[in-house]
Amino acid sequence: MKRAIDFARNGQFDSFIAVGGGSVMDTANAAALYASNPQADFLDFIVPPFGLAKIPDRPMLPLIAIPTTAGTGSETTGVSIMDMPEHKCKTGIRLRCLKPLLAIVDPLNVMSLPRNVAVYSGFDVLCHALESYTALPYNERVPRPATPQERPVYQGSNPISDMWSLEALRVMQKYFRRSVFDPSDEEARTHMLMASSFAGVGIGNAGVHLCHGLSYPISSQNKKYTDPDYPQQKALIPHGLSVVTTAVADFEFLIPACPDRHANAAKALGADIPVRVSASNEYISRHLCDQIRGFMSDFKVPNGLGALGFTPSDLPNLTDAAVSSFEKASIAPRKTDRDAVAVIYEKSMKIY
Amino acid sequence: MKRAIDFARNGQFDSFIAVGGGSVMDTANAAALYASNPQADFLDFIVPPFGLAKIPDRPMLPLIAIPTTAGTGSETTGVSIMDMPEHKCKTGIRLRCLKPLLAIVDPLNVMSLPRNVAVYSGFDVLCHALESYTALPYNERVPRPATPQERPVYQGSNPISDMWSLEALRVMQKYFRRSVFDPSDEEARTHMLMASSFAGVGIGNAGVHLCHGLSYPISSQNKKYTDPDYPQQKALIPHGLSVVTTAVADFEFLIPACPDRHANAAKALGADIPVRVSASNEYISRHLCDQIRGFMSDFKVPNGLGALGFTPSDLPNLTDAAVSSFEKASIAPRKTDRDAVAVIYEKSMKIY
Repeated sequence: MKRAIDFARNGQFDSFIAVGGGSVMDTANAAALYASNPQADFLDFIVPPFGLAKIPDRPMLPLIAIPTTAGTGSETTGVSIMDMPEHKCKTGIRLRCLKPLLAIVDPLNVMSLPRNVAVYSGFDVLCHALESYTALPYNERVPRPATPQERPVYQGSNPISDMWSLEALRVMQKYFRRSVFDPSDEEARTHMLMASSFAGVGIGNAGVHLCHGLSYPISSQNKKYTDPDYPQQKALIPHGLSVVTTAVADFEFLIPACPDRHANAAKALGADIPVRVSASNEYISRHLCDQIRGFMSDFKVPNGLGALGFTPSDLPNLTDAAVSSFEKASIAPRKTDRDAVAVIYEKSMKIY
Repeated sequence: MKRAIDFARNGQFDSFIAVGGGSVMDTANAAALYASNPQADFLDFIVPPFGLAKIPDRPMLPLIAIPTTAGTGSETTGVSIMDMPEHKCKTGIRLRCLKPLLAIVDPLNVMSLPRNVAVYSGFDVLCHALESYTALPYNERVPRPATPQERPVYQGSNPISDMWSLEALRVMQKYFRRSVFDPSDEEARTHMLMASSFAGVGIGNAGVHLCHGLSYPISSQNKKYTDPDYPQQKALIPHGLSVVTTAVADFEFLIPACPDRHANAAKALGADIPVRVSASNEYISRHLCDQIRGFMSDFKVPNGLGALGFTPSDLPNLTDAAVSSFEKASIAPRKTDRDAVAVIYEKSMKIY
């Protein structure tokens, strides 16, 4: 990403086109922002605790984003994620002004996605939608910013983001399996790509919390896992896989904070929870987590941290990295301390 | 509107704020557009058949829109509607660049709406949502524009506008009656104002067709109707009332063109149509139109064209004006000729 920024700054370009998945679009987004703010230090725009979260003096240069995976939703968000090897964690830039000018969302660009890319980017959509829908509501988020300009991109769930997130879940229920089991199913792949954009608008206005927050240490501390459908040159846990690995344990932990929202999400995913029944937390939890586990086992994804090569002795390092990357203004709907994170990683050793 | 344009052109303002209902926001929108295009003739940007639908050389000046009615959705659309007395009809400007820069959608601004303003602006929301959801799909609309720049604002129904339109209908089911019967119900008025913006995004991306198309002659050819909750200085049929007056007859006519969509709309409004039952057109029609008639009779709105002061001898004039204002590229889902329009007006003499 730093090389891309240098290239963009030196090239005196007036606009950019990003063709690719989330890494490509996020890198181009950052390059277009730093190119128009040539004095800025790399850490200036990165969120705490690693960066300074400054507001840029100048808007980014125009960027046209063309997604080639159905997962990231980066074409819609003001977010750019990068790895920070020195902190063993991923972090990012989150700015309202960090957004492509235009996106070209063409389903023909995802028809040739390899199987596992379709699977893992689909899980990214699933977690985007679930996390943004269950995020702390925007009017309960603290501290409140002093001015509208300082309002965070991850502002918490709200009636607009809710609509996009729930619609993404409804699409997943109908098309996720179809899009994986029959790669030639253009209708299914079209709707999954739309769901990716929909959930992108959801997170772009509400935010993500535990699944994503706990995924960054998993990705960064991977030592040897490689996936046959991804480049083999270096060890890589695909983003969507690291995100969904803790999802079941995350939502089991979060459900007591807002059981109704989790029940709505489960219903949008197809869970048969009767309307007008006051369901217990355990009942909702089983239904929502069954939906997630159902996708994971149907697609035979690596079954938990254990299958990704982590051993119990790795868990404290994961926990440390996660807790140190947490921001004060988390939008997780339940207070998440070190013990809670440790339990979630432990439960995520094996999932289904 | 012409006076506002002159005022805006002469004042050399750099930006505008519109505080009011649809007329106010539409007038300010037009003023901000013509002020930045000082050479343009008034008819240049107006749609056919009355205007030339030219694409402006320069973007409009910045406008902040603050709606004070829960109906128009003008704060979200690229549409500005005006009366053309010389043609006895309303018409408008529709341009992708004709959009407020920002809207402040604050429910406290609609808490003091008079009863009938709440009722009729609510019917405007209802028809925006129903018309945009049932509009010809974007990929069946002809003729196709030669360039993306010429893509019409009313581009037909599509997966994005569908989401907003259906959500507006779900909100109406829950809150329309509450917002009218208890004006102090802040929750209901909040949701109705949001539904107004939601349905605005629906029409702003899909468009309206018969209810709105047939309402313009009704408004323009009114001779004596006044409403106690609107200004009394001159005869006025409130926009939402003229729009909903033909709604039942419109949808009875349109249902055979896309019965599934009409069934979905009826379900979003709360009609008890069983899932997975292949319903007849008559069954869907009765359920959808019962929802519309239910609102109309519960709110005791004037019962049809007769109650608005029209007699059977006025109907040919209404029909002529409607047909002459129709554009070639209508997005009504069913071909609507002069005979069809005449029958709709005739059926709309009395509704419930």
